[in-house]
Amino acid sequence: MGTEGMDEASNMKVVLKHYISGSAQETDMNLTAGTIKLKAPLGSNALVVKNLFLSCDPDMIFKMTGHKREHCDPYTLGSPLTGYGVAKVLDSAHPDFAMDDLVWGITGWEEYSLISDTKNLIKIKNTDVPLSYYTGILGMPGLTAYVGFYELCAPKKGDYVFVSAACGAVGQLLGQFAKLHGCHVVGSAGSPDQVNLLKNKFGFNEAFNYKQEPDYNATLKRYCPEGIDIYFDNVGGKMLDAVLLNLRPHACIVMCGKTSQYHLEHPEGIQNLPSTVTKEARIRGYLAVNYYHLYPKFLEIILTLIKESKVVYVEDISDGLETAQKALVGIINGLNIGKQVVAVNCL
Amino acid sequence: MGTEGMDEASNMKVVLKHYISGSAQETDMNLTAGTIKLKAPLGSNALVVKNLFLSCDPDMIFKMTGHKREHCDPYTLGSPLTGYGVAKVLDSAHPDFAMDDLVWGITGWEEYSLISDTKNLIKIKNTDVPLSYYTGILGMPGLTAYVGFYELCAPKKGDYVFVSAACGAVGQLLGQFAKLHGCHVVGSAGSPDQVNLLKNKFGFNEAFNYKQEPDYNATLKRYCPEGIDIYFDNVGGKMLDAVLLNLRPHACIVMCGKTSQYHLEHPEGIQNLPSTVTKEARIRGYLAVNYYHLYPKFLEIILTLIKESKVVYVEDISDGLETAQKALVGIINGLNIGKQVVAVNCL
Repeated sequence: MGTEGMDEASNMKVVLKHYISGSAQETDMNLTAGTIKLKAPLGSNALVVKNLFLSCDPDMIFKMTGHKREHCDPYTLGSPLTGYGVAKVLDSAHPDFAMDDLVWGITGWEEYSLISDTKNLIKIKNTDVPLSYYTGILGMPGLTAYVGFYELCAPKKGDYVFVSAACGAVGQLLGQFAKLHGCHVVGSAGSPDQVNLLKNKFGFNEAFNYKQEPDYNATLKRYCPEGIDIYFDNVGGKMLDAVLLNLRPHACIVMCGKTSQYHLEHPEGIQNLPSTVTKEARIRGYLAVNYYHLYPKFLEIILTLIKESKVVYVEDISDGLETAQKALVGIINGLNIGKQVVAVNCL
Repeated sequence: MGTEGMDEASNMKVVLKHYISGSAQETDMNLTAGTIKLKAPLGSNALVVKNLFLSCDPDMIFKMTGHKREHCDPYTLGSPLTGYGVAKVLDSAHPDFAMDDLVWGITGWEEYSLISDTKNLIKIKNTDVPLSYYTGILGMPGLTAYVGFYELCAPKKGDYVFVSAACGAVGQLLGQFAKLHGCHVVGSAGSPDQVNLLKNKFGFNEAFNYKQEPDYNATLKRYCPEGIDIYFDNVGGKMLDAVLLNLRPHACIVMCGKTSQYHLEHPEGIQNLPSTVTKEARIRGYLAVNYYHLYPKFLEIILTLIKESKVVYVEDISDGLETAQKALVGIINGLNIGKQVVAVNCL
């Protein structure tokens, strides 16, 4: 009993105060103090972890709205947010995990977490890269880009590829895969700095700031005058509708996410789907979580590409859990330069 | 000169009076008298044909709106409507066609037509079936159903299939292909008589009259309680949006047409596309006209199925060009019992 008491630690957490309507604000969340027992309950299969890096992802904004949608339950008010993160195991009641193991997967926005659902938790074996990369290029966004590009859209050299939200973890990697494949790549992003990164760091042929474009159809005709063979849709809404008017024959639209729609109760209507008939286009939706079996193959490929400097990766690391609220809200406003991550603790 | 004069015949035509807004009316068209030279111009590659059967198709309504969309130019005011039909060659300046050949393809809504664009005109070799079938089950709608089912959606035995506008030429055949394949098939149509036909003639497992259903989502949950693996979309709009809420994992939506949208300048917005992500669904658009190379194979298969009574086909033949306006408008209101055809002349 005395020992258990000694294992209790203070635990700062980012909790949701109320469900949001409209855009997310920092003040929709609170940083609150709590405590946690650092022992995994015996016979529970659970882990207690120390969180190292937390990923800021657009679907977190949707979970803050309180709207229920399949595969996307709302956050519980007063509980810490959850999302992808990198963590170190402090105590394990699970046979596959041991103290000091490094893992990535779903964890809490707090200093320490008790993780009961270990099904999709992956042990980190390669530590000669920044650990934060496992929230992005080496984690779910990386797998998302890999599956979307290589498994779903049958890309060909010379294809015209357009990526929205191209500065995010998925987008920057998708664009680089497409360039490595010999495609012509255009990206959209939400700030001049992001556009600069796309053109000068990730090697996109063209990039534009969607916030300065009043008419996406005209914008796409300007930046993709030949039309679009492959579109990686990270935003949905009006951009998707404009893309549908600019498809080349047999185009493929890969549905990665709906950033522009996450805060809306009723998504914007897409009017131009009839173009899929006249252009004989395909639309493919997918969940990278169902392609975990490809993760080892993907990891081998991407680690090699990183080591050979054939892909680059840019992160925007916000230091300390006390900066997490600002960092999360920032991704919606395009304030991040590269993949937004929060560093919780030092190792 | 004298001979040419003798070759001129009177020629009744159905012409468009004005571009429509809202639903099409019989009074939007006129039956007018004209004349035609029954000789194909020398050196022209053209044919003069006597029209036998004309197909009433939903995209004709769109062409009456005057809105321009790719692959779908508006009709020219004062000129005869055009559409698929079966005709007999009276005179040919084209080396591949001769007098008395029977053909199907695009022709005019008139007694005789001069056909200059013979590219997609197909010579009819099998005449031991009703010639009107070449406007439907043996023509473009038949090829549309065949390609949509067998080439695009990878159907499996036991799949749950839903077909809208199921009483049309495409729909009735799709449903029967799906039944032959061991699928569970539900269809929607626009009248009690059409629903009766689907259940009792074409062997659909279930069918409903969409006009009596105020909430398509609830309707689909009632008729397709297991969800939908394959949806053949002949209508678009609200029905497509409701289907997106009722997909099974890895569902396939085949986009055949947009009947409900043809008269609208701006199609209804589709809000539920994010379901394609959570259900990992595919959407495939196609134009059967780009699958002409499969027509000989299709024709062999379908003629056998017809002869063995493994598929049935129901036509609603309206007699005489003077009934054409009423027949065309009727398909939008679900007045046809089976594929709507207009018989122009006797052979």
